[in-house]
Amino acid sequence: MAKLKTTIVFDSGARIGPGKIALLESVRDTGSISATARSMGMDYKRAWTLLESINQAFDEAAVVAAPGGARGGGAQLTPFALELLERFRRIEQRAADLAAEDIAALAARARSEMGEKI
Amino acid sequence: MAKLKTTIVFDSGARIGPGKIALLESVRDTGSISATARSMGMDYKRAWTLLESINQAFDEAAVVAAPGGARGGGAQLTPFALELLERFRRIEQRAADLAAEDIAALAARARSEMGEKI
Repeated sequence: MAKLKTTIVFDSGARIGPGKIALLESVRDTGSISATARSMGMDYKRAWTLLESINQAFDEAAVVAAPGGARGGGAQLTPFALELLERFRRIEQRAADLAAEDIAALAARARSEMGEKI
Repeated sequence: MAKLKTTIVFDSGARIGPGKIALLESVRDTGSISATARSMGMDYKRAWTLLESINQAFDEAAVVAAPGGARGGGAQLTPFALELLERFRRIEQRAADLAAEDIAALAARARSEMGEKI
């Protein structure tokens, strides 16, 4: 089904959309940037760069190195990141709900595939 | 102020967001693809390609050549395009309203510029 994509665009130009939110949720669930990168089909450097861009967008860090432990190398979300996830998913869900009727009306007129004619 | 960007993503992969909507509104207001391209700071070919991609996304055309006239070469929106504009702007406005409080809370923690630290 057609769906609404929501992205928050901050004054700095920083953008938080479903891709970065999914990345944060994966870090929350796996505690690992490596595992997050694998699960999202991107290389470690790409995942790290995206997470660092989230950290740079705010005064508070979203992702930090997990404290010590034998294996080390882990990552975890800060309370601020958990708040960011909650607020984003709430916006996304509410927007999807309110847009459902308009989107369904447009989707009924949408082609199932692109490029059938030029 | 930080703001919410909304984009409709159809099953075909076609996307309708604020850029294409602004393009349609300019065609509506100017009756001209050339004038639209100028007002949006893009070349004619880019404007034409984007408008054609909107036409291809749906079973109904959104932009058509304006009927004859001495000068010709004009363009106008179909009733379907006007409906698309109305539905998109309604979704966008409602989503912005419902997201305002969450976005303000996040914007209060956002940096005003990116790249202050690495």
